[in-house]
Amino acid sequence: MNRIVRGLIRTLLGCGLFGMLASGALAEKAETVWRASGDLGVVIERASGSVLIVEHSHQQILGRVDGLGDLSHASVVFSRDQHYAYVFGRDGGLSKVDLLRRQLSKRIVQSGNAIGGAISQDGRLVVAQNYEPGGIKAFDAETLALVADVLSPVGANGKPAKVVGLADLPGQRFAYALFDADALCVTDLSKPAVPDTHCYRAGRQPYDGLVTPDGRYYLAGLFGEDGLALLDTWQPERGVQRILAGYGRGEAPLPVYKMPHLRGWAMANGQLYLPAIGRHEVLVVDARTWQETARIAVASQPVFVMARPDGREIWVNFAFPDNGTVQVIDTLKQTVSDTLSPGRAILHLEFTPRGEQVWLSSRDDNRLSIYRTATHELLKTLPAESPSGIFFTTRAGRIGF
Amino acid sequence: MNRIVRGLIRTLLGCGLFGMLASGALAEKAETVWRASGDLGVVIERASGSVLIVEHSHQQILGRVDGLGDLSHASVVFSRDQHYAYVFGRDGGLSKVDLLRRQLSKRIVQSGNAIGGAISQDGRLVVAQNYEPGGIKAFDAETLALVADVLSPVGANGKPAKVVGLADLPGQRFAYALFDADALCVTDLSKPAVPDTHCYRAGRQPYDGLVTPDGRYYLAGLFGEDGLALLDTWQPERGVQRILAGYGRGEAPLPVYKMPHLRGWAMANGQLYLPAIGRHEVLVVDARTWQETARIAVASQPVFVMARPDGREIWVNFAFPDNGTVQVIDTLKQTVSDTLSPGRAILHLEFTPRGEQVWLSSRDDNRLSIYRTATHELLKTLPAESPSGIFFTTRAGRIGF
Repeated sequence: MNRIVRGLIRTLLGCGLFGMLASGALAEKAETVWRASGDLGVVIERASGSVLIVEHSHQQILGRVDGLGDLSHASVVFSRDQHYAYVFGRDGGLSKVDLLRRQLSKRIVQSGNAIGGAISQDGRLVVAQNYEPGGIKAFDAETLALVADVLSPVGANGKPAKVVGLADLPGQRFAYALFDADALCVTDLSKPAVPDTHCYRAGRQPYDGLVTPDGRYYLAGLFGEDGLALLDTWQPERGVQRILAGYGRGEAPLPVYKMPHLRGWAMANGQLYLPAIGRHEVLVVDARTWQETARIAVASQPVFVMARPDGREIWVNFAFPDNGTVQVIDTLKQTVSDTLSPGRAILHLEFTPRGEQVWLSSRDDNRLSIYRTATHELLKTLPAESPSGIFFTTRAGRIGF
Repeated sequence: MNRIVRGLIRTLLGCGLFGMLASGALAEKAETVWRASGDLGVVIERASGSVLIVEHSHQQILGRVDGLGDLSHASVVFSRDQHYAYVFGRDGGLSKVDLLRRQLSKRIVQSGNAIGGAISQDGRLVVAQNYEPGGIKAFDAETLALVADVLSPVGANGKPAKVVGLADLPGQRFAYALFDADALCVTDLSKPAVPDTHCYRAGRQPYDGLVTPDGRYYLAGLFGEDGLALLDTWQPERGVQRILAGYGRGEAPLPVYKMPHLRGWAMANGQLYLPAIGRHEVLVVDARTWQETARIAVASQPVFVMARPDGREIWVNFAFPDNGTVQVIDTLKQTVSDTLSPGRAILHLEFTPRGEQVWLSSRDDNRLSIYRTATHELLKTLPAESPSGIFFTTRAGRIGF
């Protein structure tokens, strides 16, 4: 009897310990189990090849994921369930980051030299745009297995042309520009085994592009001449239209310190806000007539020109040496309403989905600065190592991101 | 020694069982641990007071949550992290549903008679619009504790006016219409303890409203007269403007079988597509000039007129007795391009975030029908009990939903 009791006690003690460990593990799991993904984001740490995983409900850093290669020029798209971020690096690396487990799921080096990517409407294909060799490659979003390899038409230098400005379109299509073949292309990957590509003659050296928020119009900036190339992807057979002859470096070009990022082009209130190239101006263009309607003088050469999600304000950052300044444009008055100094080397900014906060990366201060957009007051700062791009998961549900 | 060995065996056996149970629990947890929330949705089962939790990446039902009261007229908003759905029932019930744990987190009955709700820009306030007594109430999104109770101005019948058409605006504001006080109101809940309400005289009996996707313009339909009431919430001091004098029942009104849902108003390509009241037409209105630009003949009295997220198509369902028909309008050609019969009593439809699928609820067939929008082919059906509203979590990041 005594033996049985002692055995039972031992059993219970042993199990108690095991149980504690087990329930401890369970509790630890339980803590992270029920993390939803609607308020998550990724911040590129450009010098260290790492990303921070952040959340904007309580403005917190949740973790860091390392080993992503050269992120000196990086971009990010999200899986349709917002579980994964796909990070495209400068070295042709494509990394799949698990935002919930906060770890690297998979990484491939898909080319020697790349500059970004996109994800298909149905979320099944992740597509990279490449410089070397020029073309686009599509990967299975689940496994990162190659499913389509579309070389560019040959450019001026006799090699497949460099691809820039890749953007997803509805219907498993992708629009992009060929820098050294002076063309805009649309590839339909509905059947990845038989990609269907059509290219259209554009102006000289298209260097970046964007689609309007509905996925209809693809616009590309031209490095080799003034104006913009516009393709109506609902009626591509009409070919490229040239708009805004006055856009560009013009007759007496100023030195260009940094090419503006066209993906930063903002659409608000039926107007497109564009960074002028080399000039201290933001151009306002009617998105129906494609005519210039205003020019707004700003502090320096604009880089990103971003619309607050409600279109009431446009936030602008600038090229070196004025990259510590951010200006806010009031879209009703069409004037600069505020000038901020959020930190040194403001490389990027991202609004929360409904626009009540804006996050800014300050590379040389190693921090993120979070502002309340209603009042332009600093809410909080967070430490980050040489941060550049900031990407929130809401992008998963949007066209052309 | 023998005793020790036997004790040890007992311990191990006992722990083994415990361990199996524990690791079983762990495995069960682990399976659901890493569920992200970007592709989730809620389907109202109107007769049984329950909701289905669904996911649209693989078109699956994940679970059912019961006990939500009278859902004969229900609407849903989502927490900013997409973890919770707030379900507003006809009986004044407000239920907080955990989409990841798939259970009811909390439920209150906040009024005797209600008709929907909204969530603030920062996601901290859930607001219900009430008929009885008329007004809006704001609740802490975390706890559902009451934080503001704003009674309507007194209406024609001497009681606080019924609130309809509640929509969130940027800056913690909410717009709504007063059915029996002929007014549109905006309440600023930046400081919930001191709500700041301004009302503006509108036409007779505004019965529903919506805001444009940027949160700028609030439009209300009028039951008591023709035309629509329009408020520019960037410049509310300018008061309500009357537009579309030809919109309404007009001189020789047809019987109205079901009031159209204005929240279904679709904006595509700079044009607003509105269900005509009582007429077999969809009206097209220029969202810049607010002038009617076209009328498209359709099969019956339209109820929901919804734009595919890329604006290329408009999908329309109809009032009884034609509620088994759905028509598709091509927005480039401005004509009906397809007529579908997805099932009996199609009460609602919802597009996936980037528009490759559309989900339709067929109440009298007890099923959901999922169509591929590129080809209009049926992809899949799912069982549901008398389904009505379908709501996907992407709404969390959008203004005016």
